[in-house]
Amino acid sequence: MTEKNANKMWGGRFAASPADVMQEINVSISFDKVLAPHDIRGSKAHAAMLSEAGIITKSDAREILKGLDQIAAEIESGKFVFSEELEDVHMNVESRLKELIGAPAGRLHTARSRNDQVATDFRLYVRDAADGIIQSIVGLQKALVAKAETHAAVVMPGFTHFQPGQPVTFGHHLLAYVEMLGRDRGRFQDARRRLNECPLGSAALAGTSFPIDRAKTAEVLGFDRPMANSLDGVSDRDFALEILAAASIAAVHLSRLAEEIVIWMTPQFGFIKLSDRFTTGSSIMPQKRNPDAAELVRAKIGRIAGAFQGLLMVIKGLPLAYSKDLQEDKEATFDALDSLRIGLAAMTGMVADLEPVEEAMRAAAGRGYSTATDLADWLVRELKMPFRDAHHVTGTIVKAAEDRGLDLEDVPLDVMQAVEPKITKDVFSVLSVENSVKSRKSYGGTAPQSVAKMARAWARRLEKDASGR
Amino acid sequence: MTEKNANKMWGGRFAASPADVMQEINVSISFDKVLAPHDIRGSKAHAAMLSEAGIITKSDAREILKGLDQIAAEIESGKFVFSEELEDVHMNVESRLKELIGAPAGRLHTARSRNDQVATDFRLYVRDAADGIIQSIVGLQKALVAKAETHAAVVMPGFTHFQPGQPVTFGHHLLAYVEMLGRDRGRFQDARRRLNECPLGSAALAGTSFPIDRAKTAEVLGFDRPMANSLDGVSDRDFALEILAAASIAAVHLSRLAEEIVIWMTPQFGFIKLSDRFTTGSSIMPQKRNPDAAELVRAKIGRIAGAFQGLLMVIKGLPLAYSKDLQEDKEATFDALDSLRIGLAAMTGMVADLEPVEEAMRAAAGRGYSTATDLADWLVRELKMPFRDAHHVTGTIVKAAEDRGLDLEDVPLDVMQAVEPKITKDVFSVLSVENSVKSRKSYGGTAPQSVAKMARAWARRLEKDASGR
Amino acid sequence: MTEKNANKMWGGRFAASPADVMQEINVSISFDKVLAPHDIRGSKAHAAMLSEAGIITKSDAREILKGLDQIAAEIESGKFVFSEELEDVHMNVESRLKELIGAPAGRLHTARSRNDQVATDFRLYVRDAADGIIQSIVGLQKALVAKAETHAAVVMPGFTHFQPGQPVTFGHHLLAYVEMLGRDRGRFQDARRRLNECPLGSAALAGTSFPIDRAKTAEVLGFDRPMANSLDGVSDRDFALEILAAASIAAVHLSRLAEEIVIWMTPQFGFIKLSDRFTTGSSIMPQKRNPDAAELVRAKIGRIAGAFQGLLMVIKGLPLAYSKDLQEDKEATFDALDSLRIGLAAMTGMVADLEPVEEAMRAAAGRGYSTATDLADWLVRELKMPFRDAHHVTGTIVKAAEDRGLDLEDVPLDVMQAVEPKITKDVFSVLSVENSVKSRKSYGGTAPQSVAKMARAWARRLEKDASGR
Amino acid sequence: MTEKNANKMWGGRFAASPADVMQEINVSISFDKVLAPHDIRGSKAHAAMLSEAGIITKSDAREILKGLDQIAAEIESGKFVFSEELEDVHMNVESRLKELIGAPAGRLHTARSRNDQVATDFRLYVRDAADGIIQSIVGLQKALVAKAETHAAVVMPGFTHFQPGQPVTFGHHLLAYVEMLGRDRGRFQDARRRLNECPLGSAALAGTSFPIDRAKTAEVLGFDRPMANSLDGVSDRDFALEILAAASIAAVHLSRLAEEIVIWMTPQFGFIKLSDRFTTGSSIMPQKRNPDAAELVRAKIGRIAGAFQGLLMVIKGLPLAYSKDLQEDKEATFDALDSLRIGLAAMTGMVADLEPVEEAMRAAAGRGYSTATDLADWLVRELKMPFRDAHHVTGTIVKAAEDRGLDLEDVPLDVMQAVEPKITKDVFSVLSVENSVKSRKSYGGTAPQSVAKMARAWARRLEKDASGR
Repeated sequence: MTEKNANKMWGGRFAASPADVMQEINVSISFDKVLAPHDIRGSKAHAAMLSEAGIITKSDAREILKGLDQIAAEIESGKFVFSEELEDVHMNVESRLKELIGAPAGRLHTARSRNDQVATDFRLYVRDAADGIIQSIVGLQKALVAKAETHAAVVMPGFTHFQPGQPVTFGHHLLAYVEMLGRDRGRFQDARRRLNECPLGSAALAGTSFPIDRAKTAEVLGFDRPMANSLDGVSDRDFALEILAAASIAAVHLSRLAEEIVIWMTPQFGFIKLSDRFTTGSSIMPQKRNPDAAELVRAKIGRIAGAFQGLLMVIKGLPLAYSKDLQEDKEATFDALDSLRIGLAAMTGMVADLEPVEEAMRAAAGRGYSTATDLADWLVRELKMPFRDAHHVTGTIVKAAEDRGLDLEDVPLDVMQAVEPKITKDVFSVLSVENSVKSRKSYGGTAPQSVAKMARAWARRLEKDASGR
Repeated sequence: MTEKNANKMWGGRFAASPADVMQEINVSISFDKVLAPHDIRGSKAHAAMLSEAGIITKSDAREILKGLDQIAAEIESGKFVFSEELEDVHMNVESRLKELIGAPAGRLHTARSRNDQVATDFRLYVRDAADGIIQSIVGLQKALVAKAETHAAVVMPGFTHFQPGQPVTFGHHLLAYVEMLGRDRGRFQDARRRLNECPLGSAALAGTSFPIDRAKTAEVLGFDRPMANSLDGVSDRDFALEILAAASIAAVHLSRLAEEIVIWMTPQFGFIKLSDRFTTGSSIMPQKRNPDAAELVRAKIGRIAGAFQGLLMVIKGLPLAYSKDLQEDKEATFDALDSLRIGLAAMTGMVADLEPVEEAMRAAAGRGYSTATDLADWLVRELKMPFRDAHHVTGTIVKAAEDRGLDLEDVPLDVMQAVEPKITKDVFSVLSVENSVKSRKSYGGTAPQSVAKMARAWARRLEKDASGR
Repeated sequence: MTEKNANKMWGGRFAASPADVMQEINVSISFDKVLAPHDIRGSKAHAAMLSEAGIITKSDAREILKGLDQIAAEIESGKFVFSEELEDVHMNVESRLKELIGAPAGRLHTARSRNDQVATDFRLYVRDAADGIIQSIVGLQKALVAKAETHAAVVMPGFTHFQPGQPVTFGHHLLAYVEMLGRDRGRFQDARRRLNECPLGSAALAGTSFPIDRAKTAEVLGFDRPMANSLDGVSDRDFALEILAAASIAAVHLSRLAEEIVIWMTPQFGFIKLSDRFTTGSSIMPQKRNPDAAELVRAKIGRIAGAFQGLLMVIKGLPLAYSKDLQEDKEATFDALDSLRIGLAAMTGMVADLEPVEEAMRAAAGRGYSTATDLADWLVRELKMPFRDAHHVTGTIVKAAEDRGLDLEDVPLDVMQAVEPKITKDVFSVLSVENSVKSRKSYGGTAPQSVAKMARAWARRLEKDASGR
Repeated sequence: MTEKNANKMWGGRFAASPADVMQEINVSISFDKVLAPHDIRGSKAHAAMLSEAGIITKSDAREILKGLDQIAAEIESGKFVFSEELEDVHMNVESRLKELIGAPAGRLHTARSRNDQVATDFRLYVRDAADGIIQSIVGLQKALVAKAETHAAVVMPGFTHFQPGQPVTFGHHLLAYVEMLGRDRGRFQDARRRLNECPLGSAALAGTSFPIDRAKTAEVLGFDRPMANSLDGVSDRDFALEILAAASIAAVHLSRLAEEIVIWMTPQFGFIKLSDRFTTGSSIMPQKRNPDAAELVRAKIGRIAGAFQGLLMVIKGLPLAYSKDLQEDKEATFDALDSLRIGLAAMTGMVADLEPVEEAMRAAAGRGYSTATDLADWLVRELKMPFRDAHHVTGTIVKAAEDRGLDLEDVPLDVMQAVEPKITKDVFSVLSVENSVKSRKSYGGTAPQSVAKMARAWARRLEKDASGR
């Protein structure tokens, strides 16, 4: 097969061979061969439809389907030899089909074009990838929810500006990521629903004069409907753009959790432990336990966001309909979706693996006057002070504590009363981190009871309804 | 008000004034003042809820609501003076409230923080912008559909690789953009639905110990529900990211149509005319009729995609919960959404304004052997030739035509028969561009009848259901 | 002036007024008015040259120069009223000139076009901004070098994978940023040199038939030479792209140092103190000392990188020569360069302001078996062990220390000898962090003596030669 | 070798194997194996230096060098088997070295770390790529200059807003790209100069206590000097960022020329012909001659700009020194530089291959009143009319011509005089496109004589000084 000349496929009109550089820039088989299963699936649906519609004979269709099945088997077993001279996956498959079944192979391309063929193949690929990612997201959510439920009452500092603000619970912190991932899942599901229209039958760009049944091929390939405009069918790459946008946002979420893991793993924080399964050593510093997996997950947003920007730039200003520029849609999309997959898998592993160091978290939660807001709220609630005044009083008391090197709950009552005479000893009940988190019972707040309840609700939802929120 | 010191709001602990450079980098009032109406709306909902929940008195609430209404009036009438010293919109409004009503103003900030406040304000802004953009998209779709229905039968070249491929109709071409915009609309609607959760009541990050009713404020502000996790509530900017991603994809669609308008306006193409309303002159070349509006629309994708990329980069690797980095979310989002709005408006105007030059389109449609596929399809259909063989025969006949300087329909029958003896004179019936487009009756194809039908269906859909596809 | 109709400037050919939306999308005066001083400077050079070349009379030139000076004064004093109807800065200035001096104003635009005029103005602006940024970079380098010299011997942990790897000195750490900024400076200087060619005289796109002297205007405006191709002159925006690329890389450097400041400021690290001048408070948590300035500096990379990406996208695929798309070059460039300026200023302030907490750094430097490499190197040097074997032995000893809860320098000799019998008590001399850093005397290494020397060398270089490295 | 366990390299401390997902995310050999030649080159320089400095014996060094040479030969002949279990190129090479020479292999890693090793390897790779790209740019410049010299007098329309503005020459148009590429070359040369410092000897991050000679290894590897700060040495990726920025700008230039080629190839323009060597056919439309190579070159900016953005995002906010995130630097950089290489090669081929269709260009140059500016300039020069008035008069005459369906040079004198009585028949001398281009003799203008001179100057410069402008 390798000695065949792809030129022959282009018809009898070309005399000169493309220059070597042309060959190099033009050939796509090195990356589009992963589309082979989708290409064959699409061709089978097309051939069956052509036969049902009377456009090719039943006997030709039988030959074609048999040949395609054999090629699929050859590819799966690794025996299929892809040829650069045949340029792309479509020509590789069709050329092999001709070898296997002869003349009927030439009838398969009736009423279609490589333009709608590749649009269909790529869309099938992206749909499969989206399905896989949706499952991976659910897997990560489950790992987070399980960990959150176990540690619903473990107190840690809640940070704003990366300074300890108020105590929260570790479960509450993890559930924040469950929410983010829930939105991510929704975006992939919406994108998947929106992409699920079939371009096959758009032909080169204008549709076809053959009496094809597009609803049939759409249905067989699992699409909700055929695309409604053939020019759009061959030139649309929204499905890849939207998936890459969703992947970019999901990857940013992963980068945030990964950053936290990296920081929590420092001896300075020491908030969590990760086993050797997710850390590596150093070639020169034997004691190192490096959070490589978290670092790599953190970095994946780079290539994913780059892929989205890159594809936007490719499509910017392209007139309708198909232009060869669109061949630049695949490599970065393949890579980005695979990067998100591995990022989700690695994060799922790390979340399941990590264990909080409760005493370190608890100790840190008490530092930095983290219950100052509780004091201010007590002044508002018990002394009916306007919040802004309470805020000012609290600031003054914190300053007094700071000057004396004391934690807030250790400031003597008389020092407080020197600032605000109406303060009573009841105030101390709100100054411990445990009471602080317990008091935050507003919906979505960090009270351990609320967190546990929320975790259980998520667990049920994820169990029952893997298909959406 | 300008002589007030914002420092006072931060409590009594700070001695030194922020350095000038700190002031410059920190102040946000120059851009976040556009959030004033949303800020007041949110504060009113919050105050009413505080009163209903018994956290503040009914009398204080009345004062607060009255004061806020007055501030809203001052802002609308342009009398309100925003102060840089008060740093942001929230402090500007609250400080003015204190001037107007005194002590009760200090109770408004009970059980909330600037963190959930700004998240609520910005979300309300983005929701409004999304609603406006959805309406603008529908407006552009209507303009396209109207033009497509009128010109459903106007023949023009359909391009692939920007070479004439097969004839299509102008209506069909325009409807391809209606499809793209339909997906854009769906993306904005999905984003709008996903963002429609209320962060108010997340407080600084942990929720609050006051018995607030988050469901109530959510409902009053038109949200579907309160956000379920307070850490997520203050640190989430997905709503801006998703809107920017949707805007980027929509802007890429606009860039494609804008590019076509620019090219169609060249004397070489001469496919359309745009009135003086959407063209401008030159300061040195008096004869120029420049498609400035189309050029500017084409370019808008730059800043919109840049805004998405920029915000991803801001959020990359940020630990929970609120960090000041998030203040960098607004300017680019405001600018990008406004750029999309003006881009859609300008394009709607241009589409309504433009008139196809039918004879130029028709003439171009016949050039470049654009009905070669029709010849190949005829060979398949009538002579039962495998498509690949038909393709080869057609290539040979096109070459013969080219060598003779003839259009395809002018090649003598004997020349064709020299290539393929079975060809009969019936073949000429498929070689005219009119018959070519008429024959493309497959679903989504370019046949004028199909295009007209599709345009009418879209018109009905847009009329009936402005809320989604 | 506001009642003047910009249309008149376009010549007598346009009947209809541009639509409102056209006005809104087309008008640039809201942002290009900052180019007014550059526009006037360019016009003065042009007028003087026209007169010297005999293209306009000396008397007309005098009137023009006088009028331009008056306009410059009006702008500087804030009296100049910019009009939206006059669309852009060029028309605003020229229209006012006509009001002031009448007929001769109409001769100023001889032998030029808005295309070369705006290219010149924008280039002058970017050159000024580059000069300012180069000075700001030097300022930040000086602040870092001063701090590094003072703290050349302060020991802190050196991190890899954000785990303590080996002890380094704080001065050494700061000098790493001096190196990065040195490269940044080089990039701005190279970009400045490359942009310093004058497009004026390219006219609309083809040059002019008037006998202008482009070398003269170039020289007067401080350019090294006129640009060599008029088509390139009006369509080139490389100078903005290159500056934005340099700004992006510099901003990434700032983001790294800003991230470190944020983390060092946590109570967990507590490596540095920042005064109130560069921290802010919280509206709800009175005790907070938030590193807002560092967070904002960290985030600036978003909009700067977005600006580069956006402008690339604007220019992608634009045919020569000038297209209106290029009007989208300014806003993001202005904003990005100003963001870098403020980011450099804020960082310079913070670096001068921050003080290391030496005992915290020193204590952290000793944790995490940070001198393990010194042990391994001792085995290689003293026992002639191959490094890979030494590495293995060290790992085993670290594990033994970890199991016993001991620091490395506290592991009893017999425990070490159980792993490797040849170890002697001399080994303890390399296990202290002080000896570790002192030993790293290789060029560019962290030994305090080397760091102090390097700091002094940088100080001299920055003092002597502010113009390059 | 494949059965070796990479874990062994990390020392004796790790018990559990990394999870499969950890393996997958962590392994880099699939892409970093292209660094093998650079890795071996760096190791040879390091070993020789270690021996000269007396750190290892001469005999060990001899063994190491011999072993490395053999490995280089194995890799070049394709016999070397890279193992995933050995994770990266460094471990693959070192492990094979141990197989070949035994114990001395373990001494090679003395006084270095994988951190400085990979920084050196990658820098060598980028330097090689930069050298190749500089040569490729010169090649494309030569092709453009040769074509420009041949066609220095071929008249074509010069476009602004993609409307014909004034006639220019094809040579002039091509030389605009020579200027752009000259700046591109300068950027690569500056980047190459700036990157040419050697990180080897930075060791893990702090330098080393061994008495290494960094100046020596730097010199042997062709670097100008060793890097001055070891923390910077292992964490700096500016060299990749700067090269990617330069590549992005160069790719944008290519996208502009590619866009022009695509449009010029349409039958509507018909300005050039490209041979079959750089066009391809269609699978369904046999007559097509698609400019695939130009389309693909146009699209390459997407992945190149995406790579720059991606790497910026990876590095954003990374604390010093080396973090594993930096492993994400290579794939996109490799791909981007290779994409630019092939883009330059394909464009060079196309430029050499393309032939202008002079009559089509000439005819187009005369359309659209392209000499209107010449008329205005004539009025200024001959009638001493202020330019703004001349502009208005010209606009009126053009309108008169348009109304009569005449070209400008065919408007009767009396029609012109009805607009401006002082016009004489001399005016016709400036209204032909030939005279128009001839008159544009200002420096950088389009006059054929000037273009020819500029082309010859470029040819000499490119011949003489391939190393810079």
